[in-house]
Amino acid sequence: MPAKTYSPPAYPIERMDLIAAELAAVVERFEEELGSDLPCVNELTRHVSRFRGKMLRPTLVFLCGRAIGELTPAHITVATVVEMVHMATLVHDDVLDEAAMRRRGATINRLRGNEAAVMLGDYLISHSYHLCASLTDPVVARAIARTTNQVCEGELLQLHNRGNLELDEETYITIISRKTASLIAVSCYLGAKLAGADDAAAKRLEKYGLSLGIAFQIQDDILDITGEERKVGKTLGIDIEKRKLTLPVIHFLQHAPAEHQELCRSLLGADEPRAAERIRKLIMPSGSIAYAHDRARRLVGRAKQGIAELPESEAKQRLIAMAEFVVERSL
Amino acid sequence: MPAKTYSPPAYPIERMDLIAAELAAVVERFEEELGSDLPCVNELTRHVSRFRGKMLRPTLVFLCGRAIGELTPAHITVATVVEMVHMATLVHDDVLDEAAMRRRGATINRLRGNEAAVMLGDYLISHSYHLCASLTDPVVARAIARTTNQVCEGELLQLHNRGNLELDEETYITIISRKTASLIAVSCYLGAKLAGADDAAAKRLEKYGLSLGIAFQIQDDILDITGEERKVGKTLGIDIEKRKLTLPVIHFLQHAPAEHQELCRSLLGADEPRAAERIRKLIMPSGSIAYAHDRARRLVGRAKQGIAELPESEAKQRLIAMAEFVVERSL
Repeated sequence: MPAKTYSPPAYPIERMDLIAAELAAVVERFEEELGSDLPCVNELTRHVSRFRGKMLRPTLVFLCGRAIGELTPAHITVATVVEMVHMATLVHDDVLDEAAMRRRGATINRLRGNEAAVMLGDYLISHSYHLCASLTDPVVARAIARTTNQVCEGELLQLHNRGNLELDEETYITIISRKTASLIAVSCYLGAKLAGADDAAAKRLEKYGLSLGIAFQIQDDILDITGEERKVGKTLGIDIEKRKLTLPVIHFLQHAPAEHQELCRSLLGADEPRAAERIRKLIMPSGSIAYAHDRARRLVGRAKQGIAELPESEAKQRLIAMAEFVVERSL
Repeated sequence: MPAKTYSPPAYPIERMDLIAAELAAVVERFEEELGSDLPCVNELTRHVSRFRGKMLRPTLVFLCGRAIGELTPAHITVATVVEMVHMATLVHDDVLDEAAMRRRGATINRLRGNEAAVMLGDYLISHSYHLCASLTDPVVARAIARTTNQVCEGELLQLHNRGNLELDEETYITIISRKTASLIAVSCYLGAKLAGADDAAAKRLEKYGLSLGIAFQIQDDILDITGEERKVGKTLGIDIEKRKLTLPVIHFLQHAPAEHQELCRSLLGADEPRAAERIRKLIMPSGSIAYAHDRARRLVGRAKQGIAELPESEAKQRLIAMAEFVVERSL
């Protein structure tokens, strides 16, 4: 077992000590929960720790809790749950995407085969519900299960629209709201709720999370086109390769000069190895990247506005900074 | 939506009317729970109903409940949950096995691709926890999550031992206890518990389920070798093709005449299309099939013994008949 410490990554926040102890407790609980009497299972789950990234979702659980009141032991459980659900979706996403690289390392499917990746994802999701069930208040289990239903629906809707060159912005927003933003929103909601927020306050933080989550995914989708693989640390260009249309591409196909639209369409239908690279080069300098960025920034504005009425606190300031970071990050 | 009726299949029991209404309620709840506002999701989940088979697990929930006392609304929920978890494992199993046929129809992975099958399995598992979370008593959610942890461990242990020609009987029993028997055992346990069984009585029915579940999987593994594809209604020979050693093969590799062992070993290592068929023909007439059958029958004996002390009732008689059916069935 690796030492159970957690060094916060490159957030634009100088001191994370407000919730550093809680984040370390999440890492500990995570590993505790996944422990098995079967050595081969432990060997496989060891890979997962390497994927631990920004811990965005646990951070939001704690900051939203702090913005409302005191953190409780249930906050640690919920933060571990949302991180574990997130890891499960990453592992299954990589199977769906046939991705080879994640967080600067090989993906599970690349290392151990698709079958192990499917089962490892199932193992993670099962343990996350197992953690939920350890709480006496059923509100957490209900909210998490409702959210994972939505995550799956988002993934299925995305899959259904693979290769659909007519995908519109609204459907795209539905996809990413469910597959990504719903888990971020419930992190905020439960963080607030468990700290004693009334329903209106918890809903406000849920809305903050939803806007932030949508913006987060838009930025992710932008980076899939504009990012540098070495810097981002995962396989890029996958959306295009898998013909998942994202906001910049959707906008490009509707607003670029006609001959560019035409070229992009034919490349999206082409089965040639350099097609994805050519599409990226076509879209990168276009106004469609700026458009997507702008939409993400407006969502961040809405997120910040949603929490403006919270009483002043360090946690509130961090929530504002996190919203800004989401659209400025390059990794 | 198809009509919400359920005709019990070829059980050796003439009248299933003792629990027919409850089984019909499971079908209804199942479809209700999976409904989505997204047409593409409903289109996909429609496929699942076609896979509905013997409803072994819901039947056990109800019979164990009846053997103890009265059925409650929670019994319907639990029965729906265990059937849904079972369906999820079938869908992901077919991805792992690259199986083409299930319950006389094409598998989801064959029809819609591996990606849709992975996500559909996730959707089913998420909805089964969502159903658990609808109950106020956390005992169900805890038992189910603990069970799905075990199911995943069993699958991972099996995956880890693919191609391991030294796999021993004990490890094989561990694999099938977790991946198959644990869900059958928890069906019995919860059925009894929700009908008001004390802990000792619920544990006895859990043990009955565990023995029956192990026997069930041994019989399944025998049929993978001896069955007729047309009759069984799913792709056979897959265990051998995927180099998953099952009880007959494990026994054969230790007890067959030396030259047969040798041939079997070399065929298991061979990458030729007819290898699985040749192994099946080699093992079919051997004492190893009889050995596996015998082991399954002894487990059934133990299962029946475990419920001998229950007061006489129609439900008890059905539980005995089900245990016998498990090892006599040819589909």
